Formats: sequence, structure tokens, C-alpha cells
Amino acid sequence: MKTSLRVAVVGCGYWGPNLVRNLVATPGVEVGCVCDLEQTRLDDVARRFQVGRTTTEFERVLDDRGIDAVVLATPIPTHRRLGEAVLHAGKHLWVEKPLAGSVADAEALVNLARDKNLRLFVDHTFLYTPAVRKIRELIASGELGDVLYLDSVRTNLGLFQEDANVLWDLGPHDLSIARYALGRSPSAISAVGVRHYDGAAENMAYLTLRYDEKLLAHFHLNWLAPVKIRRTMIGGTRRMLVYDDVEAVEKIKIYNEGVRVEPGDLESRRRTLVSYRTGDVWSPHLEQTEALSAAVHDFATAIEEGRATGSDGEAGLEIVRMLAAAQQSMDQDGGFVEI
Amino acid sequence: MKTSLRVAVVGCGYWGPNLVRNLVATPGVEVGCVCDLEQTRLDDVARRFQVGRTTTEFERVLDDRGIDAVVLATPIPTHRRLGEAVLHAGKHLWVEKPLAGSVADAEALVNLARDKNLRLFVDHTFLYTPAVRKIRELIASGELGDVLYLDSVRTNLGLFQEDANVLWDLGPHDLSIARYALGRSPSAISAVGVRHYDGAAENMAYLTLRYDEKLLAHFHLNWLAPVKIRRTMIGGTRRMLVYDDVEAVEKIKIYNEGVRVEPGDLESRRRTLVSYRTGDVWSPHLEQTEALSAAVHDFATAIEEGRATGSDGEAGLEIVRMLAAAQQSMDQDGGFVEI
Amino acid sequence: MKTSLRVAVVGCGYWGPNLVRNLVATPGVEVGCVCDLEQTRLDDVARRFQVGRTTTEFERVLDDRGIDAVVLATPIPTHRRLGEAVLHAGKHLWVEKPLAGSVADAEALVNLARDKNLRLFVDHTFLYTPAVRKIRELIASGELGDVLYLDSVRTNLGLFQEDANVLWDLGPHDLSIARYALGRSPSAISAVGVRHYDGAAENMAYLTLRYDEKLLAHFHLNWLAPVKIRRTMIGGTRRMLVYDDVEAVEKIKIYNEGVRVEPGDLESRRRTLVSYRTGDVWSPHLEQTEALSAAVHDFATAIEEGRATGSDGEAGLEIVRMLAAAQQSMDQDGGFVEI
Amino acid sequence: MKTSLRVAVVGCGYWGPNLVRNLVATPGVEVGCVCDLEQTRLDDVARRFQVGRTTTEFERVLDDRGIDAVVLATPIPTHRRLGEAVLHAGKHLWVEKPLAGSVADAEALVNLARDKNLRLFVDHTFLYTPAVRKIRELIASGELGDVLYLDSVRTNLGLFQEDANVLWDLGPHDLSIARYALGRSPSAISAVGVRHYDGAAENMAYLTLRYDEKLLAHFHLNWLAPVKIRRTMIGGTRRMLVYDDVEAVEKIKIYNEGVRVEPGDLESRRRTLVSYRTGDVWSPHLEQTEALSAAVHDFATAIEEGRATGSDGEAGLEIVRMLAAAQQSMDQDGGFVEI
Repeated sequence: MKTSLRVAVVGCGYWGPNLVRNLVATPGVEVGCVCDLEQTRLDDVARRFQVGRTTTEFERVLDDRGIDAVVLATPIPTHRRLGEAVLHAGKHLWVEKPLAGSVADAEALVNLARDKNLRLFVDHTFLYTPAVRKIRELIASGELGDVLYLDSVRTNLGLFQEDANVLWDLGPHDLSIARYALGRSPSAISAVGVRHYDGAAENMAYLTLRYDEKLLAHFHLNWLAPVKIRRTMIGGTRRMLVYDDVEAVEKIKIYNEGVRVEPGDLESRRRTLVSYRTGDVWSPHLEQTEALSAAVHDFATAIEEGRATGSDGEAGLEIVRMLAAAQQSMDQDGGFVEI
Repeated sequence: MKTSLRVAVVGCGYWGPNLVRNLVATPGVEVGCVCDLEQTRLDDVARRFQVGRTTTEFERVLDDRGIDAVVLATPIPTHRRLGEAVLHAGKHLWVEKPLAGSVADAEALVNLARDKNLRLFVDHTFLYTPAVRKIRELIASGELGDVLYLDSVRTNLGLFQEDANVLWDLGPHDLSIARYALGRSPSAISAVGVRHYDGAAENMAYLTLRYDEKLLAHFHLNWLAPVKIRRTMIGGTRRMLVYDDVEAVEKIKIYNEGVRVEPGDLESRRRTLVSYRTGDVWSPHLEQTEALSAAVHDFATAIEEGRATGSDGEAGLEIVRMLAAAQQSMDQDGGFVEI
Repeated sequence: MKTSLRVAVVGCGYWGPNLVRNLVATPGVEVGCVCDLEQTRLDDVARRFQVGRTTTEFERVLDDRGIDAVVLATPIPTHRRLGEAVLHAGKHLWVEKPLAGSVADAEALVNLARDKNLRLFVDHTFLYTPAVRKIRELIASGELGDVLYLDSVRTNLGLFQEDANVLWDLGPHDLSIARYALGRSPSAISAVGVRHYDGAAENMAYLTLRYDEKLLAHFHLNWLAPVKIRRTMIGGTRRMLVYDDVEAVEKIKIYNEGVRVEPGDLESRRRTLVSYRTGDVWSPHLEQTEALSAAVHDFATAIEEGRATGSDGEAGLEIVRMLAAAQQSMDQDGGFVEI
Repeated sequence: MKTSLRVAVVGCGYWGPNLVRNLVATPGVEVGCVCDLEQTRLDDVARRFQVGRTTTEFERVLDDRGIDAVVLATPIPTHRRLGEAVLHAGKHLWVEKPLAGSVADAEALVNLARDKNLRLFVDHTFLYTPAVRKIRELIASGELGDVLYLDSVRTNLGLFQEDANVLWDLGPHDLSIARYALGRSPSAISAVGVRHYDGAAENMAYLTLRYDEKLLAHFHLNWLAPVKIRRTMIGGTRRMLVYDDVEAVEKIKIYNEGVRVEPGDLESRRRTLVSYRTGDVWSPHLEQTEALSAAVHDFATAIEEGRATGSDGEAGLEIVRMLAAAQQSMDQDGGFVEI
């Protein structure tokens, strides 16, 4: 990047300082301002990183002519209001996932960004991991054959969010990965969830995405699990794949195995003949790049080059549509909801 | 056992020889006869183990006055017919899981065994594993607190069965473990399955069991997975547990952690306060006994003592009821079916 | 095999019944006789398996004209005496590892078998595993490049043997694997061991095998470890390999990575330039054959065809030479002993 | 800490920026200056973190009256010269491990720091991990019983260092852990190493530390391994322990198992009777604190309070003595060298 991009980070809770750390480490990017309601958080960030200045007033960010783009790491219900203000101020917008808490809010942001011709980036960070990029490539190239299912488990003893249930907190990860990797959209979604603590949100949920008669995706999302699991299995007609994000190396393994089914005959008294094929396992080398760095780089160059980012508002909107359908199913006890 | 028990094994396919191996290794038990339609299978068993005689005719088994009990390792659809013949011949009956392919068939066997005052054993082998026994004990003693969920994954590149889909093949394992460990029955079941190969049965399925508003069980059953997973997570209000049957040691781990949720206050602008508790992990020592041996021993002593076995017809019937409800849900696209 | 081979098994302790189980399962092989000093052990084996007859008298085995070969699963110090008796009786000999407790004893057996033109098989079972065969193949084909080191760890909470220390108990496994896989013999061996319990033998030992200036092998043998580890790493100039025998699948992984070292230059003030190469990981599919079965098959066909087995007396003798050298080093506090 | 500590970091290669990141994150500590010979490295650090100023001239650091302490992250051969200059300038000294490249150099630094009454800290970071602290505690409290052995494996495809072989690069970690955990010093050390690439240093080494007849420690250090292993096993008479630093959670597992050895009797024809005890496994909860943060905190408060740090010059000197003895053994082909 030739010219320097000056960004402001709004919201310095859990995730904000990580964003600052990655932003200042990206050549060509400067953090011109950090904003939060709590002064102590601002002081902590300023003591550690090279940030231009800090403020507790969001208006100061909007007024700052030197700021090109704003990164929103604030609660989901604030995304639309704050995001619209940023866009109206003529600045590019980076929103932490999900884009918004409702389809209407998400659409409003997408439309406004388009009208203003500004970049709207939704931080589905996993799309920038070497692992997820490799999976998309393996599927697109036909390496796995026809995809038969995608099964994902994302559990941990996680932080009970205040502004979202487990579906809206963890769901964007798996929905965005499935959307990106499969390159397809489901026709219907079903979800079941449980709220184990009165007054708190749903802390575990199972989602089923139906694509067609032969392709299903299923997610297990859980904030109340004793172990951290982040594993996705993808079955294909030619090969199968396991993506285990908890592994430091060998995150992806490709299994050269499967079954072959042939019509049976009368003599064998079998309806069908199924034969097994087991083979080698292969783990492709993945780059060691940090996903957040790659996302920052994409955002910055997209702004410079006037092109769309790899995780733009349309993508973010589609994820919100799926979340809303899943929520509707969950509220009505699990039947499939068409999208 | 004082007196010796003489059993016949009917069906020498995949599982039959394992049964023979364990039966001959049990003191006080003799395999008096082995029966199969294929002579070569009989020859193979007879060359290796001390079995009294072999026959391709089931009638010979029934006629043999020296045979006290019959072990059925035959396809599911034959269970009722062969089982009734065994009971009518006045012999005790061991049936491989599931007890039968329909509720009516299962009921018929249970009723006949009761009328004849003969033992009816259903081979839900997992109930005899030290791990599952320990889990039941931990739950019953309140060690885990109130159980919040049970989540089980049972996948492999498995043999596509001819006489059953994945639900009827793998489902009995998880349903019998859940029934035994929780000591409760679900009020409703929902299931979704996929048939990836025309002419073959459903090869993957997801089941959800609803017990009450706060307790859910969920199973992922899959014959077409690249890795063998057999893991059950159980969340409780006091502790959480992982049972990983693929591990040779440390099959059970108990996590002394969880969350505490308190009503929030206005000042903090939070609806609820959730605090985390993380603690030690503990893996109880388990005996190294083979489950099948323990099951054989229970069956033999139950016959000798005239008492019920630990996995009797009533238990087997309840599992069939759950399988039938799950099948109904699967056929009608996943809505909950009351039991 | 056309004709049937009739063997006798001598010694029914821990390992003997396993041998019987595999022998009776091998087509073309019959267990004509089982011999042990304890009648209860014989009764137990006879109740389970098809064995011709049992005896507590070794002489009965020798006299039996119907016995073609004898399997010795007796304590190491008895190998020479019993083995010589077997060979003098004109029967082929299978000896559990190690061949004998001293070089002199091992040589006596090798010489006598040669004189009598009888097969002498030493049961280095690992040489018949698909994993070790694959490793030998990968090295022989140059897939790994020049081998730089072989590092093996074999630990467990193991049975303290009465007739051997950990070196003579576990050492034969790693020494035979190294000999077979590398296809070379070391020039010197050093060993250090500890005897933690008075009156018991050394229960842990470290061995270092020097082949040449650039090739080292090292083994950690331990009966007193909390975890079962059976892992061998092999570093090569082109690729590296890990063989983890505790894994049920993916026992072998090949890492396409390494370093390249170039002479440095003055300007860079570096003596050498080392560059890294990381790449894919590949796990070759291995057959699921049981090693003991393959060993029995090799022994039986070698007898039938009058050819040497794949693990004959010469191989067994070389392992004993290495064990004796390691013992000598251990007794003199670890200096290298030339072989 | 009441007053603020101002430090300078000298050396911004691989490790320097990590030090800066942790120093700026520690309340009460400021990075007043960063020094390196390469301006681009300085620019990179200054763009990201709050560092007072940068310089390519070491003298500027010494002259700066505002600097209280200097952190040396420079090549080992420079430690003595630069360290002495720092101490002569009246500043406290933090040296990356090992303290120096020879016993003489290490002694010189220890003596000078004592004479000047300045803090000398050697960065054996592992001593500040919750895991190693817990291990020391478990041993000191007698939880493990008498320690029988400590076995450590530290392998990776690691950076070939220019200023050190694998012994001087990785050895300080295991030697300092063993010293700290066992609370004892070995009486003799033996080592074997290999230099696989001409012109480069030894890239793999095995060390054996003898404490007494019953206690041995052994380390496998390897820069050329396909997998990252960082595992220490400690066997005790009461319990055994595995510390696996690659694990994100459950880094320490304690196995309540072992053996009991009793004198045998004539009747049983056994010399000794060994009985096994297997039991539960327990993984204690560990704090999630970053070791480097804890080290920085200890250094800063030690300066403020005028007390010794937990990893002072004497400790660093003893590690250098052990390294020198191991090097001597390695040079003379592996015999034990008394310390």
C-alpha cells in the first residue's frame, strides 16, 4: 500500500485490544484514535500501543477528518446506529460479526454503504484463515467430489454474552465458513436451543441446514462445554476432510476413502453392494499467517483500490438472514424454516 | 456358578465369532452348538474354538435337549421369528441389539418370555462397560449436579448394514447408554437423516431427545465419516464429563467447572451476571474388564439364580420404542414426536 | 499351504494363549499339543481353543511324532536347553524374543539349527507389522533421503519381568526394528540403566547406537512410566517420519520438511545459512493384518518351502550381540562398547 | 509497584519484540529505549508499541540517566561484554538465557552484579510458568514420593542458532526446570550430540544427569525433528507426573500409580514380588498467566524492594556450569563428567 490508512477503533472490551495490536502491526495502517466509554480501558491501550489519541466520545471520532475508516467492536444492538453514523460521516466501516441483530438493520447498513460508495467489511475472521481458504479450494477443485455433508462442533466453556445468545455469538463463524466453503446457500434451517439459566440467553444450540435432498450441514454450538472443540467434518463422494482448528499444526486432514454402492442382485439376496475404500491421509501445509492480519490487509487494500472486500456487506447480510431463520425455528421448537 | 450353562450361538457373521470367543472364555459356560447357514463359517469357528458341534439347521438347535440358552446374532428382521421359536422350545434367549425391528415384534418377545418365565437378554453391551457404569454412578450420586445435556457423537467409516439404517444400527448404543446413565426417559424425539446412496439406507442421522425444558440429549450417528469418534459430553450444574470411548485409558474425564448465574442490577446495566468456575480435571480409574465377558457372566448367573438380567426385555423394548419414534420423525422431516 | 503343519506350544503364561489363538486361526496350522508346568493354565487353554492335547511334561512334546514344530514361550534362561532338545528331536523351532540370554547360547542354537537343517524362527513380532515393513520400504527407496537419526521411546507401567531386565525385555523390539528398517548394524553401543527397587532388575534404560559420525539411534526403555508411549522418530535429509504404534490409525506420518544448509559469506557475518522447508504431512494407508498372524504364516510356509524365515536365527543372534554389548556398557557406567 | 521502572531493550531480533510487548503491558514498567544495530527493526517496534525512543548505538543506552535497567536480548557471546557495561553504568541487568557462553564469563557477571549491588536476572522463563511452579510444589510436598527419574523431550523443526548449538540453546530450559523442580544438583553429566550439517553446530543431543544411584535425569534436545514435543515425565515412588507443555489445557497430569516390590520367597521360586497399583489421573487447574509477564513483574518488584529475583545470577551460573560439563562430555564422546 502506497498511502497510509488511518483508522479509529470504537470499543475496547475483550476483542478491541486484539484489533489494535493487529492494526498497528500492519504496514500502511495507523490507529489514529481509540474510543471507549471507559477511560481505564483507553489508558491501558494507550500505554501499550502506538495509538494517535483516545476519547470517550464517539462524536470526536466522526468529526476527525484524519480518520479514513472506523472499526466497530461494540455490542450487536449498537451496530446499526453507530454504523450509520460512521457511513454518514463518509468513513469506511468495519463491523465485528454479526453485521447486525436483525435483517432490517443489516439491510439498512448494506444499502447505506452502497449509496455512499463506502466499503462495508464484516469481520468473519475465519474466512481469512489459511485453513478455510484451503477447504474452499479443495471443494471448488472437485478434490472431495460432491459434498455430502458438513458437520461442525464449536464448544467451549465460553463467555455468556450479554448482547447475544449462543446462536448469534458462535453461529456467524460456522455459517460464514459453510457459505464460503460450499459456495451455496441452504434452502431451509432448523434449530433447537436450550436456556439453562433463567435470565440468561440460550447457551447451547443445534442447527441443521438443508441444501437439497443429499446435502445437509449441522452445527453444534455450546458455551457450556468442558472442552474446547472446533472441528468440522466434510464428507464428499471422493474424499473426506476434517478441519480441527484446535490443532496447532495439521489443522486439515484429507482422507482418501469412502464407499462405493452398486445395485445388488437376486442371487446374493442383497439389495445393494457397498464396498469400502480406505487410503492415505494427507495434511496440506498451511501458511502461518494470522487471519486478523490478513483481514486488515484486505480491508486496507480494498479501500485503496476501490474494490469490494472478501467479506462484504452482502455476505454479512446473508449470514444475518440465516441467523434470523434459525432463531425463528428455535422459537417454534425446531421445525424447518424456509429461507 | 456351580452348574455349567450350555449355549448355542446362531449366526456366525461379523459378531458371532466374538461372542463364541467370549462365551468359551467364561468359566461355567460351554458353547454346545454353533449354527449358521454357511458351512464355511462354521468350519472356521470350529477349527479355532471348543464348540460342541455345528449345524446349518436351526431346528437342530431347538431340538437339542442339552442346550439351555440360545444367542441370536442374526439379522434384525429374523429376531422375532427365531426368538419365539427359541422361547417356545423352553430355552433362555440372548438377542443382539436391537431387540426387534418394530415395537410389535419387541412386545411379542417380551410377553412370550414373561409367560414362559425364561430370561430374555438384549445385548446392549455398552451397559456392561466400566465407563458407562461409572457414569451412571456419578450421575446418581449427584456428583455432576443436575444434568443439563448429553451430547454424543458416534461416527466411523462403518459397514453399511443391510438389515438396518444407521439409526437402528448405531442408535441402540446411545439410546441405551442415555437411558441407563440418566435413569430417565425422554418425552419427545426428533430426527433428521440422509440417504446418500440410492438403494442403500440412511447412512447418517441426528437425533434430539427432549426430556424437559432444561434437559436435552443429542446424538450424531454416521457411517460415512473419515474418523472414528465415540464421544459423549455430559453437562451438569456442578461438574461436566467427557466419555471418550476411543481412548485406551482415561476414557472418562470429569471437569470441575461450570458457570454461576446471578440476577444483574440496574447500575451495572447488565441483565445477568455470569461468573466462571474452572478447576481440576479428574479421570477415575476404570477396571479393564471386557464388557462382553461381563454381559455373558450376568446372563449366566441370572439364569442360574432365576433373576432378571441387567439388560432385559423391558429395557430392550423401550429402546425399540425410541427408535420407532425417531424413525417416524425422520420420515416426516424432523418434527418432534411424543413418546 | 497344501499340507497341514502341526505345532506344539510350550509355556502358557502371559503370551502363550495369544500364540495359541493366532495359531489356531491360521489356515493350514494345527496346535497339536500345549505344554506347561501348571495344569490349571492348560485347562484354561483347552477349554477355549481347539488344541489336540495338553501335557505338563516337556518330554511328551519331544516324543510326539505328529508334531512338526515347537513354539517356545518360556523364560529366557530356558531357551537354549529346551531349544536344543527340540532341534535334537528333529523339530522346527520358534523362540520368543530374545533368542537367548547370552551370545554363546544364541550361537549354539543357530549352529545346531543349521547342522540339523531345521528352521529357527525368533519372534521379533514387530518385523511383521505393516508399519515397520512400510518404514523399511520408505528408507530403502530413498524416500527419506539419508537417515540422520532414529529415536525411539517405549514406555509403560510394565510388568517387571523375572527373567530379564528392561533392556532384555523391551530392547529386542527396538533393536530388531532399527536393524530391519535401517538395514545396517551399529559399530558401538552405550547404555545407562537404573535399578530402582532392590532385588529387582534394571527397570529403565537409555541406549545409544552409533553407526557413523552422522547416524545415531537412541532408545528410551522404561517399565515404570505413567503413560504408554511407543514412538519412533526418524530424521532424513529429504523427509522425516514419526511412527506412533499407540495410534489405531495413522501410525506412520511422513513430514515433507527439513533444512538446507549452505556455506555463509563474510558480508553477512554468518558462518552458515540455514533455510527451512516445511510441507505437507502424509500418512500412508497400512493393511490391518495382525503381525502375529503374518509371523505364523511366514514360519509355516518357510517350513513347507524349505526356505529361511524373515526373522531367522542369524537375525536373532545379532540382536543378542547388541543386547550383550549394551549390558556391558550399562555395567561399566555408560561408555561406548564396540561391537 | 508505586514508582515506575524505566527499562531499555537491547536486541530486536526474534525475541526482543516479545519482550517489548510484555514490558509495555506490565503496569509500572515503561520501555524508555530500544536499541538494535538495524534501523528497520527499530522502526517496526516503534510503529507498534509505546517505546520512548530508539537508537542504534549501545552507548546511548548506557548514558541515559532515565534508564533504570537494561534487558539484553543479544547473541550469547556478547552477554559478558555488554552486561559488564550495563552494570558499570549502574543499571540493573536482565540477560536472556543462558547467562553466558562460559563459566568464566558467567562468574564475572555474577561477581560484578554483587559488587555493584545491582539485580542480575537470567531469563529462564519456564520457571515462571504456572506448570513448573506446580511441579516444584508437588515434589516439595512429597506428593510424588521420592523422585526416581525425570525424562524430558524437547524437539521441533527449530531455528539453527548461529551463536549456540542445540545444547546451549535448548538445554538451559530443561536444566533450569530440573534444578528448580528437583531442588538438587547432579553430581555428573554425560552428553552425546550430532552435527548433521558441516559448518553448522550440533543440532541434536542427549544429556544424562546423574544425581545418585537411584535418580537420573535425561534430556533429548533436537532442532531437526518433524514434531514439536515438550514433554517431561517424572517418576516418583508414590505417584508419577507428565508435563506436556504443548497442551493448551491439562498441561500437568498426575498418575496415582506405581509398583510395590517385596522380597520373594523360596516356595514361589521368585526372587521378588512386584505388584502394580493403578489409580486415578488428576490434572490440577493452572492459572493462565503468561510466564514472561510474571518474570517482568518479579524483576521489577525485586528492583523496587531490593531483594533477589527468583532467577538470579547464581542460578544462571549453575546452569552454565552444567552446560559446560555437558559440552565437555560431548566433546569426549559421552563419558560422565563430574561437576
